[in-house]
Amino acid sequence: MEFSEHIKTANVADVVLRQPLHPPSRGTLCITGHHLLFSDREEGSTRQVLLLLRNIDAIEKRVSGSSGTITIKCKDLRVLQLDIPGMEQCLNIAQSIETLSSLDCATKMYPFFYRPSELRLQDQWGLSSPEKYYNQVKELHVKWRLSTVNRNYSVCPSYPPAAIVPKTIDDDSLKKVAKFRQGGRFPVLCYYHRKNGMVIMRSGQPLPGANRKRCKEDEDLLKAVIDGSDKGYIIDTRSSQQAMQARMTGGGFESKSCYSRWKRLHRQMERGKALQESLIKLVEACGDESNNMDRWLSKLENSKWLSHVQVALSTAGLLAECVERDGHSVLVHGSDGTDSTLLISTLAQLIMDPCCRSLEGFLALLEKEWILAGHPFMQRCAHSALSHARLQQESPVFLLLLDCVWQLLHQFPLALGFSEALLLRLATEAYVSDYGTFLGNSHRERWAQGVMKKTHCLFQALLRPNERERYSNPLYEPTELAIWPSVHPQSLQLWRGFFLRWTQQARQLAEAQEEIRNMVIEWGKAGTQSMNK
Amino acid sequence: MEFSEHIKTANVADVVLRQPLHPPSRGTLCITGHHLLFSDREEGSTRQVLLLLRNIDAIEKRVSGSSGTITIKCKDLRVLQLDIPGMEQCLNIAQSIETLSSLDCATKMYPFFYRPSELRLQDQWGLSSPEKYYNQVKELHVKWRLSTVNRNYSVCPSYPPAAIVPKTIDDDSLKKVAKFRQGGRFPVLCYYHRKNGMVIMRSGQPLPGANRKRCKEDEDLLKAVIDGSDKGYIIDTRSSQQAMQARMTGGGFESKSCYSRWKRLHRQMERGKALQESLIKLVEACGDESNNMDRWLSKLENSKWLSHVQVALSTAGLLAECVERDGHSVLVHGSDGTDSTLLISTLAQLIMDPCCRSLEGFLALLEKEWILAGHPFMQRCAHSALSHARLQQESPVFLLLLDCVWQLLHQFPLALGFSEALLLRLATEAYVSDYGTFLGNSHRERWAQGVMKKTHCLFQALLRPNERERYSNPLYEPTELAIWPSVHPQSLQLWRGFFLRWTQQARQLAEAQEEIRNMVIEWGKAGTQSMNK
Repeated sequence: MEFSEHIKTANVADVVLRQPLHPPSRGTLCITGHHLLFSDREEGSTRQVLLLLRNIDAIEKRVSGSSGTITIKCKDLRVLQLDIPGMEQCLNIAQSIETLSSLDCATKMYPFFYRPSELRLQDQWGLSSPEKYYNQVKELHVKWRLSTVNRNYSVCPSYPPAAIVPKTIDDDSLKKVAKFRQGGRFPVLCYYHRKNGMVIMRSGQPLPGANRKRCKEDEDLLKAVIDGSDKGYIIDTRSSQQAMQARMTGGGFESKSCYSRWKRLHRQMERGKALQESLIKLVEACGDESNNMDRWLSKLENSKWLSHVQVALSTAGLLAECVERDGHSVLVHGSDGTDSTLLISTLAQLIMDPCCRSLEGFLALLEKEWILAGHPFMQRCAHSALSHARLQQESPVFLLLLDCVWQLLHQFPLALGFSEALLLRLATEAYVSDYGTFLGNSHRERWAQGVMKKTHCLFQALLRPNERERYSNPLYEPTELAIWPSVHPQSLQLWRGFFLRWTQQARQLAEAQEEIRNMVIEWGKAGTQSMNK
Repeated sequence: MEFSEHIKTANVADVVLRQPLHPPSRGTLCITGHHLLFSDREEGSTRQVLLLLRNIDAIEKRVSGSSGTITIKCKDLRVLQLDIPGMEQCLNIAQSIETLSSLDCATKMYPFFYRPSELRLQDQWGLSSPEKYYNQVKELHVKWRLSTVNRNYSVCPSYPPAAIVPKTIDDDSLKKVAKFRQGGRFPVLCYYHRKNGMVIMRSGQPLPGANRKRCKEDEDLLKAVIDGSDKGYIIDTRSSQQAMQARMTGGGFESKSCYSRWKRLHRQMERGKALQESLIKLVEACGDESNNMDRWLSKLENSKWLSHVQVALSTAGLLAECVERDGHSVLVHGSDGTDSTLLISTLAQLIMDPCCRSLEGFLALLEKEWILAGHPFMQRCAHSALSHARLQQESPVFLLLLDCVWQLLHQFPLALGFSEALLLRLATEAYVSDYGTFLGNSHRERWAQGVMKKTHCLFQALLRPNERERYSNPLYEPTELAIWPSVHPQSLQLWRGFFLRWTQQARQLAEAQEEIRNMVIEWGKAGTQSMNK
């Protein structure tokens, strides 16, 4: 295996591991192509820590005398420390970790090597697709069709092969529309609201540019979405000023004169670097041990993270109101249509659609709206909050989604079929995983790398009986009603389960939740038995 | 009944009531000596709102044309609005409410008239007393005795008739000690730690004054608490500067030279007006509807309430550490010994002593450490956060205690035998109640007014089967261990259940909790049945 050239020292004995919530322990450290393995065999009991090298966000080494200390900062926000005897060994280990944790080649990543005995590569990959959605929602068949114009990814590289579009718009028109939309992301249907037949569509920004170019096919496509007498809404996740400025670089917005039936609403959502910096500030604040309440609250405010949560939830609420309360179809886009657009379309579906709220439904929603819709996970999740690397395309949009979903779960403890544990698991998996689901930046990349053939699917794995029990909400009582979140700042809270997960208090809470879960499950069984008698 | 002279208009029809979480409703308003009663008999269903007039913290009236609007701000933070037809009727009603809600005479208050059929005045009053505690804790009998030197309240007007003191200190000495302590509050034992025989004592500040007077009996009393070779701690809930300054007005602290075996620790805790203003600011912030996250967080910080929670919990933690971890006895006092002193002695007992954590145990603790120990409830809870009256002796120390207990409950969801609902109930009862428990400022006042003979006891009422079920924690799993709270600012949270209780979100959460509780109870029953089969 070519990894070996990066491993000069594979084993070191007598290493001391210090990690949160555990006493220091002494044992043996091994480095393999993908893992760091620490085993402590002292006093009969074996404790092992197995860490994917790719989980490592930053590494710091300090050598003093004949030994050294390596501090490992993980993408899941854990911080570990290794005291390693022997200066050379320490430097070798550090070097291996640095190199192996940042290998770029996708097909050398661990998901391509992970072969658990209980899964087979032939098993079905994924839960959802535009085709499946189209087949499930028969009401769509009147006015909508499934287009495979993108079957070889040539029309829109970030879209999957199939897309749901208005029946009256043919593939040649779609090709023209794609040229008029950022990244080729022509408007596609992502949600059909059964109660009133309204839909959510999403796309990239239009490209009128400074010359105010028009695209008849784009105008026709949007016209075809709404009935003659009706009107639709466009939710633009940029301020109107930002949308205006985008014209200078070839982008822009749907002008009133060309899209007369569509009313634009602008809601400025933070994205990209600003969001990443917000996360970094918040994580820094959470780690502050000064024990000063004023300082903590002012750092929390300064990070702006909760403001981003609020804006995301309230924009999603606006979208859901347009569809559910006011009965209009809505097109959502920002500029790329791969970040905040997906964030609010996902949240709006959770608010309105009971089917998305079961464990399967939620995972299918994530697959449809994030994995297949082309959120560039590889770029966005290359580094997390503790890295020293220069920021490039990193941005915690998906983490922001999970935080918003946690707020929903917190406000409606019975309405969602999955637990906080699932959200925590997904928050890690998006950054580092044994599975192929979050690999690559698009369906096209995953297809080219053979992800669907050579790796296992996380979402399928999460639905196996054991995992399902672990990630279900034992209090789940499905409701048909929309769940309208409160977006008052007073109602939104720091997601302590995630941001403080490696602290003593979070462990206490997690243990308590685990115990509650066990009690409820036990009682449930006892109840069922008693009823069966 | 002489109340009638204050009621010019007793009934008004066609009044519109607007209150949070309900649609406006039209009905009849009645004013009685103690209550405001609104009944809505529209459309078959009857809805009644019964409000103790004493719950009213502030009233605002606005007359326009031939009708008027009265806004009622309650001590439990609810805000109601009444649209009343007829200017004169409106003014009459407002006048009655103003007068009757602020009547001073204790024996005219509602607890003296409340006669529910399921309670009898002969029933036992209260759960706890120094006598009872002394009889329960046999280990005390070696070194401690029960003194009745205060049987007619002449030695310390704010103490109950009995007190637990060192055996070697006779009543004459106690009288001298009482003269050397603020308010006559000589050091008394309030908690015996069975694991190591250490105790918590509390008192008022000593009174050396500017001349550094000494009191041999006081020094002897403290010497008697600790064994010859041992040392004790004094936790002074003021900064050392504040304690120093107190000498100018006759107060002071235990100097190192006179109390050589005792080590003083100063922890500044906010009290009095500053605490009341903190509450007012926080309640104002919670009602801010500007929907701006930064503004909310900065107002939350500015109110300082969470800082007070943090200081209270960490000082209580310090006290518990002295006793449980370091194995020393501790004397606690600030200046009066009736506020922050009780706050931290109560919290420390909850942290260390499993017996205090059951529903009965907690109520008994409150009775022992707050009601009998002479927290001046009548003064401290005369007004709450919405009053326009000039502040006098108001201070939400007891509310701060309940908030700290909620933080404990939140951090240890299984360790306490009672629920958040109990804390919410107590938060209201302390300000306004059908029961006599929180009346008066001391045992002496309650005795003089005949409270224990002519009113019912809240704590006994809360232990009746129905109430007990409602206020128990269905997840309670008693632990013998100390429960050390995290006091990191990151771990402490706004008590939303209380401060946002009249908002939509709080109601959703309360309903969800209620449903969880019902599920757990149902499952519990099913489980028991199944086990019995």
